[in-house]
Amino acid sequence: MLEKPPANLAEALAGTAAEVEHALDDLLPMPEGAEARVVEAMRYAVLGGGKRMRAFLVMESAGLFGVDRRCAARVAASVEMLHAYSLVHDDLPAMDDDDMRRGKPSTHKQFDEATAILAGDALLTRAFEILAEQDTHDSAEARCELVLALGLASGARGMVGGQMIDIAAEGRQLTADEVGRLQALKTGRLIQYSVEAGAILGRATHTQRHLLAFYGRDLGAAFQIADDLLDVEGTAEETGKATGKDAAAGKATLVSILGVDRARAQADALSAQAAHHLDSFGEKAEHLRKLATYVVARRS
Amino acid sequence: MLEKPPANLAEALAGTAAEVEHALDDLLPMPEGAEARVVEAMRYAVLGGGKRMRAFLVMESAGLFGVDRRCAARVAASVEMLHAYSLVHDDLPAMDDDDMRRGKPSTHKQFDEATAILAGDALLTRAFEILAEQDTHDSAEARCELVLALGLASGARGMVGGQMIDIAAEGRQLTADEVGRLQALKTGRLIQYSVEAGAILGRATHTQRHLLAFYGRDLGAAFQIADDLLDVEGTAEETGKATGKDAAAGKATLVSILGVDRARAQADALSAQAAHHLDSFGEKAEHLRKLATYVVARRS
Repeated sequence: MLEKPPANLAEALAGTAAEVEHALDDLLPMPEGAEARVVEAMRYAVLGGGKRMRAFLVMESAGLFGVDRRCAARVAASVEMLHAYSLVHDDLPAMDDDDMRRGKPSTHKQFDEATAILAGDALLTRAFEILAEQDTHDSAEARCELVLALGLASGARGMVGGQMIDIAAEGRQLTADEVGRLQALKTGRLIQYSVEAGAILGRATHTQRHLLAFYGRDLGAAFQIADDLLDVEGTAEETGKATGKDAAAGKATLVSILGVDRARAQADALSAQAAHHLDSFGEKAEHLRKLATYVVARRS
Repeated sequence: MLEKPPANLAEALAGTAAEVEHALDDLLPMPEGAEARVVEAMRYAVLGGGKRMRAFLVMESAGLFGVDRRCAARVAASVEMLHAYSLVHDDLPAMDDDDMRRGKPSTHKQFDEATAILAGDALLTRAFEILAEQDTHDSAEARCELVLALGLASGARGMVGGQMIDIAAEGRQLTADEVGRLQALKTGRLIQYSVEAGAILGRATHTQRHLLAFYGRDLGAAFQIADDLLDVEGTAEETGKATGKDAAAGKATLVSILGVDRARAQADALSAQAAHHLDSFGEKAEHLRKLATYVVARRS
């Protein structure tokens, strides 16, 4: 098992992270006036943190179709804003009550709860706005498709639905199937969207889009199991957030249901399956293939 | 001063409210599974309540251009979802901490805080999604324009920015200009958007859209002063929510700065000015004109 991504993947990840950081900075200018505080909180929540895996998926998927990188970076920034909003709201005392995120105080600790709620709301709003802006794609049809796909992935039938199931399930014993569905909604849909967004930008064929969606689905599932393994096996120092929280909260994960070994085997199988969906994309999909291996091998 | 809207306006308001209620019900179907709880909370927050003024503005403005009422009703439902999300999050303990809304327990009291946060997030998401859906308009350009206009009106440069200013201003003495700007962002922008949305749906000329935007801006300002007057003069029974809260919270309003009489005079002047922007629209704008009179005369 690898602890770090292979050199060329690491380089590509770092390059994309820098590119998307730049786009995020551009897309969130500080306004004059007292409303600047909410933009400051938005920037605190989304800038300078995370592996930018979702952004990387957008960029690499768009790259398969030769999409202009500046357009793809806008969509990548948008999905990172969406992801950041979900973390800000998830960390609130009424939700997971997490004081730390990515090794620094979570947004409501750094600012206050009201500001964190508003910053999350505004990040969500801005994410949709960016997709509809003309600079994102020449075709308004494609821009609408992005908005629709993000809405489906992140709303009540996607990420928010998954969070609701997660909250409703606390203290109750879930089956492996139920946990799988919860996690597909909670984290899987947005990861799948990220890969599909590249296909939408690239005006991919129906088949290409489906293959990429399958890749995203399996990668997301593998990623989530790996995350749960880290929660059991990792240390706070490695992951930059509290670990062992799932067990403490009585939250069922595939690791708690299947045990570490079977869960790891399932993650590895999903990772291999994800890579397999990319067969027809040839050499250009090499980073996406390596990412599938890396997500199950990472230590943070 | 009228206490109730004139008969034909009242009828039009009630007709639109019923139409939009139907659209909301259609656009928020209950899913299977444990995520149903968040949809239940979304429906609780948005169905069966409010005057539907924003929806009415969309419908009447779209009506000026002969837009299909089913398309307009979707956009009207979307803006009511956006408005409902803002109320759900505003009512949270970390924000305004309101237990009652429209004469019933606010969403976090009826459900719980986590569910209310998620329901607000999902209403916001669904509002954008609906705008991008093909049934909303034949032209993807128009759908993108709606998404952009709603984003601008409701994000950090609009409604959320206004809420941030409001929170940051608590306990500090604001000038009349500062209060005007705060309220323009916090409530004005979304009212203005509602009128502009009809113009976007109707592919209005630049001039027509601007006139309607000005109408919306002045109507929104008049509406807000009238709301603050109600907070001072109304009773909880009439308004369905706690009154006198602004004073108790030390929140500056134009009423507290200018006094009741000057504030009322300003609301009346804004109302007249709003109606004036509609001069070129003739008879078809009669409901919008009457609404401008009504918002400053209402008692709830």
